[in-house]
Amino acid sequence: MADDSANKKQPLLSGLADQNIGTVKKRRFRRCKTTPASDADFFGSYKGRELFPGSNSILRNFRPSFRQASLLLIIYLIVGCTCFYLVRDQIVGKKTNGILDALYFCIVTMTTVGYGDLVPESVPAKLLACAFVFSGMAFVALFLGKAADYLVEKQEVLLVKAVHLRRKVGTRQMMKEIEAKRVEYKFFTIVVALLVLVTLGTIILVKVEKLNIIDAFYCVCATITTLGYGDKSFSTTFGRVFAVFWILTSTICLAQFFLYLAEIQMEHRQQTLVKWVLTRRMTVVDLEAADLDDDGVVSAAEFVIYKLKEMGKINQEDVALVMEEFENLDVDQSGTISNSDLLLAQSVE
Amino acid sequence: MADDSANKKQPLLSGLADQNIGTVKKRRFRRCKTTPASDADFFGSYKGRELFPGSNSILRNFRPSFRQASLLLIIYLIVGCTCFYLVRDQIVGKKTNGILDALYFCIVTMTTVGYGDLVPESVPAKLLACAFVFSGMAFVALFLGKAADYLVEKQEVLLVKAVHLRRKVGTRQMMKEIEAKRVEYKFFTIVVALLVLVTLGTIILVKVEKLNIIDAFYCVCATITTLGYGDKSFSTTFGRVFAVFWILTSTICLAQFFLYLAEIQMEHRQQTLVKWVLTRRMTVVDLEAADLDDDGVVSAAEFVIYKLKEMGKINQEDVALVMEEFENLDVDQSGTISNSDLLLAQSVE
Repeated sequence: MADDSANKKQPLLSGLADQNIGTVKKRRFRRCKTTPASDADFFGSYKGRELFPGSNSILRNFRPSFRQASLLLIIYLIVGCTCFYLVRDQIVGKKTNGILDALYFCIVTMTTVGYGDLVPESVPAKLLACAFVFSGMAFVALFLGKAADYLVEKQEVLLVKAVHLRRKVGTRQMMKEIEAKRVEYKFFTIVVALLVLVTLGTIILVKVEKLNIIDAFYCVCATITTLGYGDKSFSTTFGRVFAVFWILTSTICLAQFFLYLAEIQMEHRQQTLVKWVLTRRMTVVDLEAADLDDDGVVSAAEFVIYKLKEMGKINQEDVALVMEEFENLDVDQSGTISNSDLLLAQSVE
Repeated sequence: MADDSANKKQPLLSGLADQNIGTVKKRRFRRCKTTPASDADFFGSYKGRELFPGSNSILRNFRPSFRQASLLLIIYLIVGCTCFYLVRDQIVGKKTNGILDALYFCIVTMTTVGYGDLVPESVPAKLLACAFVFSGMAFVALFLGKAADYLVEKQEVLLVKAVHLRRKVGTRQMMKEIEAKRVEYKFFTIVVALLVLVTLGTIILVKVEKLNIIDAFYCVCATITTLGYGDKSFSTTFGRVFAVFWILTSTICLAQFFLYLAEIQMEHRQQTLVKWVLTRRMTVVDLEAADLDDDGVVSAAEFVIYKLKEMGKINQEDVALVMEEFENLDVDQSGTISNSDLLLAQSVE
């Protein structure tokens, strides 16, 4: 069965025929065959078998769509607004318009800003606030953060496109650059967004809420960090209309900022590790450990698995799981899968 | 050079000699050689070459130690406490003891609870609060969360040990169980911790702050979510001493709770994907794409790489990076690394 293909020693070396052993080594595996055009999937033009190519692809693919998250947010706000509107007489503090106050209270609660300029007074209103702060936190943590990440990624592409407009580089190369420096670009995008939001918030607080510039900035800081002492807050009708949109965006922005900061930190550490793993000297013990099929030599694929394990990108459980499947597919038990194995497997079915 | 080892076809199949092709297939790669006792590193008894075995191992190894995080926290609190003590006359609200209030204000600010029972009044005090809330957030996000994760993992081991005390299972098997259900156990541990903290907080608020049970629970909810409306807060000396420890622990606990919830969600999705990748039918096109060294058949290692890529655990960049290193090591360009390659590489140096 597979024995004839196992005998084909020539193809393995065929690519090397024209190369000599020199001090400057050329690349032999110029384009690994196992990468079926992985750049293409950025534009959704990818129709192939390999559904999830990138390392973060699982995240990206399972991420709730922006539309889905918006819809959920609207439903959440409508429910919250209705509930708090119904108990509006049991909420005390500075009031403007009934519905606006309910919406504002809902936003201030779900983002955990909690100024305290409006506070629930009755038992039902208090329990309602408890329910909404927990569900709001879960909603922000599990949905809105991911939706924001998606938006930032879109913005990031626009940003890089704008930067590259003059230098005529191909889209493919541009996408490669984004892929390589994804986290850095995201971080940059979020910093810009934060600066815009902080400035906007300060201006509105000065112009509309008539605060002095220091108080306005202090209120902005207290809000975006969700601190919300409540000594300064939005008390006018227009201020609260603005606050509804601004609080939600700016608090999520700052949370994403810290997330990307942690990601950058992590990535730099991982790069250090990868460098260490790749440059350290291989020993005979390593060689023996990496030799998956016990043939006395380490093939390219075996080497890759061994090194990726050392880098912590995959673990033994992952490998064991796939190995089990491999043994099922290797019907003739030759230690390799060939076309005949596939045919055999189908005929068994 | 490596040609003699390439001719050794027998060793590849040697393990299969005693097996027949049957309907029930036995495992051939019983214990993959590339796993050098990965269970051992739980107890730090691991001294070997493979520094980072688990999938989260990079995280685990680079995580700041608990002692380091505690030290940083103490420094942060001393600095914060000193600063706020110095501006204590510029902070208005319910006051008890000078130093205690400064510490309490520092904790309420860094965790972004921000009751507003103590608020900065002067410009310097306001700017100081802004500085401390940002640095506090960064500190909690980048350090304390990870330290908490470390603590939870320790607790988790104790928990499983306690459960397994009666059934006499080996430590190794127990560790395997923890590894497999790591996130679930963490989640369970944090839920227990949260319940204890919520109960404790409610009791103290009833007994010390003389709140009724509903108000106490409402204040607990408003605090652990960092909402902090501030209509109910800690105003007695003993209440604030308790609050200093309790607020820090409970807010971090709730944040970890949501983190683990998201991790569980992610893991379940990944398991679905892994199942899909493993059960879908291999085609001739897959076979060709997976054949890394162009020898017409897919070896076990090649199959593992192809499938792990499909699962999104590794990507082409990872593989390409290691392949480059492989080519450097394969001095005789045989397509495999053998002992002679290693010797040759050393003699070149």
